[in-house]
Amino acid sequence: MLTLYHHAFCPFSRAARIALAEYGLEAKLVEERLWEKRKEFLIVNPAGSLPVLIDRDAARPICGARAVIEFINETAGADPGARRLMPDDPYGRAEVRRLLDWFDLKFHADVSALLLKERIYKRFMRVEHGGGPPSAGAIRTGRENLRFHLHYISKLAERRNWLAGDQLTHADLAAAAHLSCIDYLGDVPWDDYEWARHWYARIKSRPSFRPILADSIPGMTPSRTYADLDF
Amino acid sequence: MLTLYHHAFCPFSRAARIALAEYGLEAKLVEERLWEKRKEFLIVNPAGSLPVLIDRDAARPICGARAVIEFINETAGADPGARRLMPDDPYGRAEVRRLLDWFDLKFHADVSALLLKERIYKRFMRVEHGGGPPSAGAIRTGRENLRFHLHYISKLAERRNWLAGDQLTHADLAAAAHLSCIDYLGDVPWDDYEWARHWYARIKSRPSFRPILADSIPGMTPSRTYADLDF
Repeated sequence: MLTLYHHAFCPFSRAARIALAEYGLEAKLVEERLWEKRKEFLIVNPAGSLPVLIDRDAARPICGARAVIEFINETAGADPGARRLMPDDPYGRAEVRRLLDWFDLKFHADVSALLLKERIYKRFMRVEHGGGPPSAGAIRTGRENLRFHLHYISKLAERRNWLAGDQLTHADLAAAAHLSCIDYLGDVPWDDYEWARHWYARIKSRPSFRPILADSIPGMTPSRTYADLDF
Repeated sequence: MLTLYHHAFCPFSRAARIALAEYGLEAKLVEERLWEKRKEFLIVNPAGSLPVLIDRDAARPICGARAVIEFINETAGADPGARRLMPDDPYGRAEVRRLLDWFDLKFHADVSALLLKERIYKRFMRVEHGGGPPSAGAIRTGRENLRFHLHYISKLAERRNWLAGDQLTHADLAAAAHLSCIDYLGDVPWDDYEWARHWYARIKSRPSFRPILADSIPGMTPSRTYADLDF
């Protein structure tokens, strides 16, 4: 049995959960609140990042979004006839990895790190961990940056079947994982980005996405569009 | 012939250059000053990040440190008998990728982004691009954080042959690439971290490292230790 250290509104953890489900793998989920810097967790992953996957060998944890994604693909995806979320040719894989950087570094820095911290994490963080009232400026910046990224996703979705090309890949999962967290908050202006919405509706309708859409934040109602497949 | 868009003091570019040399591949180097946000370059890589590798197909650039490293490994490293900078087993590769995150995300944010920007890039950036006098506070923070990382590298080097295990991997290249830039500035307190120094002396002595140590910054003399193999 696999174990995944995760947080319900951590986009990197969500991407790993969707990937596991796409490969037909079940994992026991263990919630980790990174900002508490729990000692036992830092022994497992000294970088203190999520997700962390424990496969058969508990002494060799798979730490970090990129390591987890490549590991799942190399192990579960290696079976003949298995679903693969990475293309077969190296140029195709390079395009997936370019987009993983795009979403996990750029989109995260521009948008999700700001909005998730200000609107979700700060509610649960103690003052000494950085909790407190949200910064209106940071939220405004995150929302403005989001438009640039929705425009880019629309451009990709307009000319490709999935974001990295013909097939569904980890790039779609990463993008959708980030957007799903923001969408809970109602911060995504879907109506202005038809192609992005069309792409997101398709990925959101997959069975692998269902457990994600069932997640909720105590005391915070999801947006109207969050779990609606025909938003 | 390969082409690599790079910058001499960009740690990600350096890691790619060392990797190419380890695989026995030659690439034409094209200098890119990211802060100028050159339009033609942003068409090649919209994320505006380095390095970018152009292989046979110029229409399919390999963008970003991670994509470049995995691509070189999958293509050049796939030949029978070829040197490989990734272990054969998936757990070993996960450990390399964990450390790539460590150096390219954490070390970069904690140390090299601060020191390189303040001490090198700002000298060449126009004011409208963020140039100007260095911030003493940012330099102090970068230097303090560096000690934590040298301690971690020492711990790894003490109990392993190379940072990720028995063999030389991309994790060593990434770590050494970051440190080599900082070392030019004379900011690395090697004497306090014997194991880290021992490990760095070995990687620095490799022929693949030689072109890196020949790079210099106009108007800025390298530290005494920079190119000295017996520092």
